[in-house]
Amino acid sequence: MASKVAVVAVGGNALTREDQPGTAQQIRDNAAEIAVGICALADAGWQVVVVHGNGPQVGSLIIQQEAGVALVPSQPLSVLNAMTEGQLGSVLALAIDSIRGPGSAVAMVSHMTVSPDDPAFQHPTKPVGPFFDAAHADQMQRERGWLMAEDAGRGYRRVVASPTPLELLELTTLRGLLGTGVIVLAAGGGGVPVARTPAGPFTGVDAVIDKDLAAARVAAGVGAQALLLVTAVDEVYVDFGTPQARPVRVMDTALADRYLAQGQFPAGSMGPKIQAAVSFVRWSGASAVVTSAAHMAAALVPDAATGTRIVPETIPATVMSRA
Amino acid sequence: MASKVAVVAVGGNALTREDQPGTAQQIRDNAAEIAVGICALADAGWQVVVVHGNGPQVGSLIIQQEAGVALVPSQPLSVLNAMTEGQLGSVLALAIDSIRGPGSAVAMVSHMTVSPDDPAFQHPTKPVGPFFDAAHADQMQRERGWLMAEDAGRGYRRVVASPTPLELLELTTLRGLLGTGVIVLAAGGGGVPVARTPAGPFTGVDAVIDKDLAAARVAAGVGAQALLLVTAVDEVYVDFGTPQARPVRVMDTALADRYLAQGQFPAGSMGPKIQAAVSFVRWSGASAVVTSAAHMAAALVPDAATGTRIVPETIPATVMSRA
Repeated sequence: MASKVAVVAVGGNALTREDQPGTAQQIRDNAAEIAVGICALADAGWQVVVVHGNGPQVGSLIIQQEAGVALVPSQPLSVLNAMTEGQLGSVLALAIDSIRGPGSAVAMVSHMTVSPDDPAFQHPTKPVGPFFDAAHADQMQRERGWLMAEDAGRGYRRVVASPTPLELLELTTLRGLLGTGVIVLAAGGGGVPVARTPAGPFTGVDAVIDKDLAAARVAAGVGAQALLLVTAVDEVYVDFGTPQARPVRVMDTALADRYLAQGQFPAGSMGPKIQAAVSFVRWSGASAVVTSAAHMAAALVPDAATGTRIVPETIPATVMSRA
Repeated sequence: MASKVAVVAVGGNALTREDQPGTAQQIRDNAAEIAVGICALADAGWQVVVVHGNGPQVGSLIIQQEAGVALVPSQPLSVLNAMTEGQLGSVLALAIDSIRGPGSAVAMVSHMTVSPDDPAFQHPTKPVGPFFDAAHADQMQRERGWLMAEDAGRGYRRVVASPTPLELLELTTLRGLLGTGVIVLAAGGGGVPVARTPAGPFTGVDAVIDKDLAAARVAAGVGAQALLLVTAVDEVYVDFGTPQARPVRVMDTALADRYLAQGQFPAGSMGPKIQAAVSFVRWSGASAVVTSAAHMAAALVPDAATGTRIVPETIPATVMSRA
């Protein structure tokens, strides 16, 4: 490969922001901003793979599918995930092409294998789609077999499993593309989750794969030199919300584990990012960086003055002194 | 490239048949049947590119988007096209992988440039989506700016332009993939139509590209040795519905043009296929074949006993005798 590979994970809520209904124009405008950062990375010599999330967009599709259910059959979650790979892959590819020229980016509809025995399937916890009142939640549970759960006093939502991503079905093709300089959008929404039964064919399963974990998996699979987890903040904070709140510039995997065990990073947001970062760093020996979209390229410069870097564990001095 | 390239165009109504509402299971089952033919082509040594249609599927999405419009913003036609590239690309890739093994196929979200000056934009004629009564048609025209047209006494439908496909934005990537043996799904639904204004960025436009013409364009672009247009019948007929009805085994482009001029092939179905075939044969000097899904591989054997072959014009004997 001509250059070093960076895998960049971008949230679905960077494409449809929390205060936005998600019109095509809003998604296009947000994609244009993200594309600037991605192109800056490419300009800095990185071969870039982008893994986007799809939470708000798949949520909109679920609402539309339900609204039209008397007229046309609704599609299962795995198919809706594939639809968002087309939708957001197209928007991001066009945004990148608009900066770097036609054909600079290509979106690959991606599938991620999961184990049918993943314990997540025994205890689905990931909420997807709209809120229902108790009566409608009951109805969906009866009619669709959906598992519904109460969500922080705001109503009921469908919960699905979030199994561990194992292997990108398109990994060989992705590796091949990385030599060509094209910016690849892969594993969108974490990829369509696919379970392979011993005898049966590959089929999508109704689950969602965390896009940060998927990005870590893809990064390890292609031998990436960096994993970049893009979020709303420039750096990761510890003791957040206290007078001792401070940004972390560098942490090795051991320190990250300690912070995780202390509950420093909320489960729904920064927690999975740090876990994905730690997984990638342990698998690969390379570094992961958490930062904002605006600082993407700057954060991957050695000794960058921005972003939080997660690095391999160094042998502690105390251990060495005992030897 | 290791082997000869065949571009295969498969209709969206091969994936959701006319008598089917289009459940995920129906689309999967139909894809599994199509995948058998595609894999037979690959087994016969062809490097295969598949261009699928998306008429029924984009129609379903339009209905669902409208049904949910009070809750979430509906997406424009160009975005819905991208969604079906994800949906059907995923289904077909999984169906192929289920036969040939993981990673055998990859779906590329594709964009096709069109000219903003294409005369089709002056006279949109291609109906998309559901039927409306006169009052609702009027409302959609006012509120959305949609152009509505009466459709054969069955009600009103939105009509959009069907411009000529010019260039696949992802052509370089596609050419690169063809050396690797992977079966590529490209230009799904004809590709997202993209017009580039002199100054502006690439953006999707609300139009539909004929998938057979898109396939012809892709086939010429990659230097394919064959274009295979899959349809419901094994061979093309002339004088159809008369006592003289007979299948055509081979026609050169001059004969095909004469038949087209005679109105032998209906505008909505076989006509565009023959036009696409003639275009490809003229651009490339290679052959095109029209046949059914069941005969895909058999029809590409030299001197095949099935399918209708469109071949380059030979210099007529009468012309040669004059020389």
